[in-house]
Amino acid sequence: MTVFNPKNPDFENAVKTSFAKQGAMTHLGAKLVKVEPGFCEIEMPYAEELCQQHGFIHAGVVSAVADSAGGYAGFSLMPEGDGVLTIEFKVNLMAPAAGEKLIARGQVIRAGKTITVAQSDAYMLQDGKEKHVATMQLTLMCVTGNPTVSG
Amino acid sequence: MTVFNPKNPDFENAVKTSFAKQGAMTHLGAKLVKVEPGFCEIEMPYAEELCQQHGFIHAGVVSAVADSAGGYAGFSLMPEGDGVLTIEFKVNLMAPAAGEKLIARGQVIRAGKTITVAQSDAYMLQDGKEKHVATMQLTLMCVTGNPTVSG
Amino acid sequence: MTVFNPKNPDFENAVKTSFAKQGAMTHLGAKLVKVEPGFCEIEMPYAEELCQQHGFIHAGVVSAVADSAGGYAGFSLMPEGDGVLTIEFKVNLMAPAAGEKLIARGQVIRAGKTITVAQSDAYMLQDGKEKHVATMQLTLMCVTGNPTVSG
Amino acid sequence: MTVFNPKNPDFENAVKTSFAKQGAMTHLGAKLVKVEPGFCEIEMPYAEELCQQHGFIHAGVVSAVADSAGGYAGFSLMPEGDGVLTIEFKVNLMAPAAGEKLIARGQVIRAGKTITVAQSDAYMLQDGKEKHVATMQLTLMCVTGNPTVSG
Repeated sequence: MTVFNPKNPDFENAVKTSFAKQGAMTHLGAKLVKVEPGFCEIEMPYAEELCQQHGFIHAGVVSAVADSAGGYAGFSLMPEGDGVLTIEFKVNLMAPAAGEKLIARGQVIRAGKTITVAQSDAYMLQDGKEKHVATMQLTLMCVTGNPTVSG
Repeated sequence: MTVFNPKNPDFENAVKTSFAKQGAMTHLGAKLVKVEPGFCEIEMPYAEELCQQHGFIHAGVVSAVADSAGGYAGFSLMPEGDGVLTIEFKVNLMAPAAGEKLIARGQVIRAGKTITVAQSDAYMLQDGKEKHVATMQLTLMCVTGNPTVSG
Repeated sequence: MTVFNPKNPDFENAVKTSFAKQGAMTHLGAKLVKVEPGFCEIEMPYAEELCQQHGFIHAGVVSAVADSAGGYAGFSLMPEGDGVLTIEFKVNLMAPAAGEKLIARGQVIRAGKTITVAQSDAYMLQDGKEKHVATMQLTLMCVTGNPTVSG
Repeated sequence: MTVFNPKNPDFENAVKTSFAKQGAMTHLGAKLVKVEPGFCEIEMPYAEELCQQHGFIHAGVVSAVADSAGGYAGFSLMPEGDGVLTIEFKVNLMAPAAGEKLIARGQVIRAGKTITVAQSDAYMLQDGKEKHVATMQLTLMCVTGNPTVSG
């Protein structure tokens, strides 16, 4: 695993502050568990209101949490004051998301000046064991200064 | 656009019944608007609790709704009693999801016996105009009999 | 379909000149058929040396041609002197690529200052009919001035 | 890394025999280097005829080799007599593919009865060092008996 040097010494607070502003993550019951340079972990307890028709967590909800973990992994390496945008992602749903809670771990693979590539994996914790339920590959963009302008 | 013949004459009810069981879609405030053979439209009003840190609808939430539209487009062509699984999808987020409501339209591109390929596009309605905010490509699987078993 | 205004009035020549420098396209026997603003069509005759183990054109070769069609569709809209990079693509292989020739058609979906999203579809011509064999979604990047620097 | 038990005791020969039939891999100058249960490594020396307009190996060619490595990683775990199909893949091109040779390593992430998910990474060897140039996520399908029928 590549070791990354964060450009923003206060990267952990930057991620926490941004995460706290995400209505969507709160609405899904997700919380930020760990932030390291190029890495981010998010957890979300199982709830019926997050499920699809068979009682498993909805693929889109799994993807939302995995996207956030991957996006914040990338954001942790960006300069202070810059913003992160998910340009695109691709996710494989590999097993039904049944269990007690979802754990998503995002990891930067390549950090470029403009484009960052990350991977994010989601696991369901059940009876103390983790099951690998989804794997995602993301392309992120660093937006200088104004994080609200799209690429 | 290809014209599809549904194998299940009662496909519209099958989609409606399945959609109604999705806690996640209800939780996000999404509703089923239209079902045709190989096509499905879902709408979701804008709400702060669905947003990321800049006040736009979270990429993951946009993806969840687009995934459902694409998945039900595929499900509408499957035999009665079979289930649909999203094996994987890839989505490009093309513009900030700001506006009054999100509209996702899923369309089958190829319907195979086991594997179905669909496309789903998401638009934000703002001041009466639609802005194209995301485009998704999905791979779906038809699961015979027991829709809860993963591929 | 969106109508695009090319920034480079000489876009057609820019695409032709660049294509002619691609050793890979020549090696595969592919040729440029049509260039319009935001659109590009490439053809490649069937040959055994392009196939996988069952005599169909190799998925990777289909993808190489579709990638070029999508990439040049994007390049046709970029300013004179700038270069195009494929950041990533995703492709669904929908049917065996058997027939007389492969036709790939790339079309821009969204042209941004930095990021362009395109779609590319590949068809096999057989007995005068086209069969849809692959559909691809690409993310392209416009590289100002020096097209050899990666994002 | 998961340890996989091959269902076909003669998996190595099955992969070698299939690879030898791929006109496309021969045409690109690629050769099979290593096969293990759930893993496959392929190499391809740099050549101008494999390049795009700036003298780097064409993204589509990199993808073709990475696709083969991922596909054969999956095939190594399939029952004797069955065939493998690439349903879809997504690839991020992370750095220009310049150097002496391309090395692609495919690894199975999840092996299902019907659907297998694999990852494939491509590196360029230059001055004795490997540079990570592409990362790919693939969805493969096991086709019972007749490997020429598409999903």
